[in-house]
Amino acid sequence: MTALKVSMIVIGDEILSGRTTDLNGSWLSKFLFIAGLEFKALRFIHDDIDEINQALTASLLESDIVITSGGIGPTIDDKTKNTLARFFNKKILERSDVADIVTQNYSQFGRTWAPGHNHYHHFPEDFMATNNPRGLAPGIVYYEKTSNKLIMAGPGVPREFSEIVEKEFFPLIKKYFAHRFQENYQTVIRTKAIAEEKIFFDLCPTLWSDLEVYGKVSSLPHTIGIDIVISYHGSLIDHQKKEADIKNLIMSTPLAEHVWQYGNIPINELALAMAQKKKMSFSFAESCTGGLVSSKITDLSGSSSVFMGGVVSYANAAKIELLNVSSKTIDDHGAVSIEVATEMALGALHKFKTDYAVSLSGIAGPLGGSVEKPIGTVVIGYASKKINGARTFIFPGDRIRKKERFSDMALLTLIELMENKLD
Amino acid sequence: MTALKVSMIVIGDEILSGRTTDLNGSWLSKFLFIAGLEFKALRFIHDDIDEINQALTASLLESDIVITSGGIGPTIDDKTKNTLARFFNKKILERSDVADIVTQNYSQFGRTWAPGHNHYHHFPEDFMATNNPRGLAPGIVYYEKTSNKLIMAGPGVPREFSEIVEKEFFPLIKKYFAHRFQENYQTVIRTKAIAEEKIFFDLCPTLWSDLEVYGKVSSLPHTIGIDIVISYHGSLIDHQKKEADIKNLIMSTPLAEHVWQYGNIPINELALAMAQKKKMSFSFAESCTGGLVSSKITDLSGSSSVFMGGVVSYANAAKIELLNVSSKTIDDHGAVSIEVATEMALGALHKFKTDYAVSLSGIAGPLGGSVEKPIGTVVIGYASKKINGARTFIFPGDRIRKKERFSDMALLTLIELMENKLD
Repeated sequence: MTALKVSMIVIGDEILSGRTTDLNGSWLSKFLFIAGLEFKALRFIHDDIDEINQALTASLLESDIVITSGGIGPTIDDKTKNTLARFFNKKILERSDVADIVTQNYSQFGRTWAPGHNHYHHFPEDFMATNNPRGLAPGIVYYEKTSNKLIMAGPGVPREFSEIVEKEFFPLIKKYFAHRFQENYQTVIRTKAIAEEKIFFDLCPTLWSDLEVYGKVSSLPHTIGIDIVISYHGSLIDHQKKEADIKNLIMSTPLAEHVWQYGNIPINELALAMAQKKKMSFSFAESCTGGLVSSKITDLSGSSSVFMGGVVSYANAAKIELLNVSSKTIDDHGAVSIEVATEMALGALHKFKTDYAVSLSGIAGPLGGSVEKPIGTVVIGYASKKINGARTFIFPGDRIRKKERFSDMALLTLIELMENKLD
Repeated sequence: MTALKVSMIVIGDEILSGRTTDLNGSWLSKFLFIAGLEFKALRFIHDDIDEINQALTASLLESDIVITSGGIGPTIDDKTKNTLARFFNKKILERSDVADIVTQNYSQFGRTWAPGHNHYHHFPEDFMATNNPRGLAPGIVYYEKTSNKLIMAGPGVPREFSEIVEKEFFPLIKKYFAHRFQENYQTVIRTKAIAEEKIFFDLCPTLWSDLEVYGKVSSLPHTIGIDIVISYHGSLIDHQKKEADIKNLIMSTPLAEHVWQYGNIPINELALAMAQKKKMSFSFAESCTGGLVSSKITDLSGSSSVFMGGVVSYANAAKIELLNVSSKTIDDHGAVSIEVATEMALGALHKFKTDYAVSLSGIAGPLGGSVEKPIGTVVIGYASKKINGARTFIFPGDRIRKKERFSDMALLTLIELMENKLD
């Protein structure tokens, strides 16, 4: 049984002009993987009849399912619907069943629709229209019986696209290809502070082949370390058994002390969930990350229950004024030091009256490094009512990447602090 | 003269598993657009010989240039080099010229390389090896004379990939296809606080066709409004003339008052550059954005010259303790109010002793809205030595998207404050 193959066509100039990231393609690759479908290709084309035709032809050759995003709105440059109709040689009709769906799409925003507003209800014969749970334009679906292919056109706006694929398109894929699904699972081991080569060549030279017994092995660099991913098909029970076996295997190796998670929960979610479970509050004092640690926590709904706030003390004066860092400590040790990071964490703990606080002071570059403290150095401080201290790390990457790495290491420090792993 | 066509093949499980965003594809689409090349397709494949062969065949059919990313490292699952050699029927040789390039790649990190370390110097005959300005594995290039195709394999790590394409691959593209380049330019008009339909149907119904005289018109939703982009080929002088003409055209329409930039500078860069030029310092007080505004500014090298810091006052207690907001103001008007946002901005101005301060208090959702202050409401406050105040906005989108929109509107508020456009 071969996996169902999916090709995607991204229609519109937004992507081709490079002015936005292709969010829909990234999202779809993730969604398809979890669903056990195979992502074959992603094509970027202009909103142009010939280009849509060519991309459709190529996509239908290599895939069972073709999903397009973009070009289904009401403006002049939205050509997807008419091109699909012509491609499959279907007449465009005024369809009252489609008008009903459009009416419903509008009504979810408290708006009314009338045929004079646009041509959403002009729709190819034999095509299906679907609801658009977060937008107005209906989804466009056609099942081609002879060749057993499914073509589905969704909106380009990412939040509309993901919702229509999940709620409307995926159930149709299941319906038309029910006999060809395979469940897909992953076991993920997340490590820190060790290089890829070190793991597989020095520390555990047989680990890769030992893990291959369970499935396909991948080694994926992450912000603060390497994630090892083992993927396999099977039932949920098989998966749970494999997950336990793999964990036992890893725990018998010297890699175990570098593992910070057996699982695949994003680090900000892990930190927030732990604080919520313990009913403990926390705060941050950030310098080089400039607010990114706080921003990562506040990306999560419900963070206000335990996250009280933070100080972005970019200037030394701000460290002194807002976090009670002593100017003498800065003069004696420099802003990027164990002493200053510790005082920053204590300052945040007291100012925000939280159970825990984590601080960062570092050099994100590209300017500002020295031989003693090269670019990429970050000191991460921590404080609770019982303990306080700081640790130094050095991370590679450009400025943006360093901010990411520093921030995730700060979140891991918060987790370790809550787990009483620091002293 | 048709534009050079490029296809990309992303090799490796990292993308297929949906665990990372395809940074290289997004980056390449942008790079190719600026270079005037056409991005035809992006294929995602496993690090598997058959899949690489199939993707190569398909890519070579539709494009002049094929660029791959991933699978050129030293580990077992790096199969790109050997597969390419077999595809073009070339023997792998031990090559001293490639050993020299590998040695050079290592030396840029202060490391030495020897043939025992790995097989980087085992390289297909007739292929070219290139330097890897940010990594160790050499780039792999083959020019197929008969069909006039160029195949280039780079690393999967984004910072290595972008650098090798820019510094090593692009000069080779220019060399082999010198006669087929076309310069490509864009004029961008960035608007705020007006819907796409409103612009083109109500406010300026002839604008789209008026702009099409100059080139291809696109309308791209951005965080705080709509960007109108006009793309065209021609010389730099043509471009400058068109840009001026388009600006004059827009300024004669009622859309002009919604334009916040004739140009394409990211809003954080625009704000920072303006503050640096004026030698004026600024600070932020953030609630709902949780540090994202500060983080966007500190993404930029050199921001420490004018950005002093910020407070993430997520809890009301933090607003009172760190920003001197009066608890009575919070009780009387609520945390999301003109009064509290104004006091937050004044608090930041005084605490950080800056020339300007901008604050935000809002409801990012999905919880916490009311009829009076629905989810998506944000009050943005501002303060300088001369003036202070606040304005209310409502933005759509999920929590993450709202944080983005709120943050960019705060940066625009800082720009308007520095331009003396607020009172």
